[in-house]
Amino acid sequence: MLFFTQCFGAVLDLIHLRFQHYKAKRVFSAAGQLVCVVNPTHSLKYATNRCAAAQTSTEQGVLSPCHHHEEVHDPQLVPCMCPLFSCPWEGHLEVVVSHLRQTHHINILQGAEIVFLATDMHLPAPTDWIIMHSCLGHQFLLVLRKQEKYEGHPQFFATMMLIGTPTQADNFTYRLELNRNQRRLKWEATPRSVLECVDSVISDGDCLVLNTSLAQLFSDNGSLAIGIAITTSKVHNAEVEM
Amino acid sequence: MLFFTQCFGAVLDLIHLRFQHYKAKRVFSAAGQLVCVVNPTHSLKYATNRCAAAQTSTEQGVLSPCHHHEEVHDPQLVPCMCPLFSCPWEGHLEVVVSHLRQTHHINILQGAEIVFLATDMHLPAPTDWIIMHSCLGHQFLLVLRKQEKYEGHPQFFATMMLIGTPTQADNFTYRLELNRNQRRLKWEATPRSVLECVDSVISDGDCLVLNTSLAQLFSDNGSLAIGIAITTSKVHNAEVEM
Repeated sequence: MLFFTQCFGAVLDLIHLRFQHYKAKRVFSAAGQLVCVVNPTHSLKYATNRCAAAQTSTEQGVLSPCHHHEEVHDPQLVPCMCPLFSCPWEGHLEVVVSHLRQTHHINILQGAEIVFLATDMHLPAPTDWIIMHSCLGHQFLLVLRKQEKYEGHPQFFATMMLIGTPTQADNFTYRLELNRNQRRLKWEATPRSVLECVDSVISDGDCLVLNTSLAQLFSDNGSLAIGIAITTSKVHNAEVEM
Repeated sequence: MLFFTQCFGAVLDLIHLRFQHYKAKRVFSAAGQLVCVVNPTHSLKYATNRCAAAQTSTEQGVLSPCHHHEEVHDPQLVPCMCPLFSCPWEGHLEVVVSHLRQTHHINILQGAEIVFLATDMHLPAPTDWIIMHSCLGHQFLLVLRKQEKYEGHPQFFATMMLIGTPTQADNFTYRLELNRNQRRLKWEATPRSVLECVDSVISDGDCLVLNTSLAQLFSDNGSLAIGIAITTSKVHNAEVEM
């Protein structure tokens, strides 16, 4: 009996996911857009001050030593970038993607434009929704975080980071778009490098920020659909230089 | 001596305003855009619950009686819509514009696309920046408000309202755009009618919301430039109906 109840529950979950997928596709009606359902990553504590030294990161493809890596270490190594896990892993920039996939089971998606469908927005802070995005020959990390910057007032922060150096990141522009009920909110910026650390981007507020009330206006049945597009900004850079 | 000091101060202010105007024009480089410098309207207290009954407003061009207008009154009259003044004026919808211009000295601008340059963003909350915008045969009210929805955490709220009925407002779409330092934030929505009251729009968070840190990222020398565009949305409505 228990087995049949569980099977029925699983089938209901599948129908629910399929329904969310269909709705997100309907909202972002552009043909060929991949809709990816992203479940939350819930953690009880953050690795505090993990990247306090991130502002001093150089162009050499390495992050300055973090507080929980205070021992002398190989300057060619990068600490694990997965935002919510206090993971002791260190490795070269080139193997960050395979580490995130294999150890933290973060999905990687292909395509210039995708729809990120974050489920269970009601979960208490801190919660992260993370996905990797492979596009234009590079890998990007999209992080949506629910966090209480001010106690008792959770907010949503969304940003895109390049798994590469800050110089490489300057060549791209990313766009996050929310679209529902005749309302549209778009954020466009240059992605930061993962060497700069997602924690500092969010504490600076240099990302898409949503109050709970605004997030509720854009979410549908507890899920938030974010359209993502990445373009190269080399032409704009060249124009600025001229 | 004091006279010359004051004159010098006034000249410096003029040069500063001209410089802000030039910079806003440079940021919003589209030809023909009118840049309007808007000084803050600072008030010590709000007219609390002024529009608590706004949600029940009808399509007849009148607002339900407000808490400070509890006496029986002509249902064809509209209370003063100027957000920060607890103004006892009431009048027909058709004369709201002339009341706002004459009594509260709110400027009115012409053109489909304008740049709203709000000065002195550092002033403490509550502060409003207000302007009227005449476009497509109608008048709109742009309100930027700095308010502490949560004590100690001021935020900026920007919305556009039609000086007309909710049915008329449904025919338009407004866009607010911030653009600075390779970052761009756009908010698009259907304007609300002034009959629905700006206080309730802001308390619902159904508008462009900026944290102080994000407002600082977009502001330049204490001023925030907001590009405004209004279009008709009749075509979209027709498509939805089909």
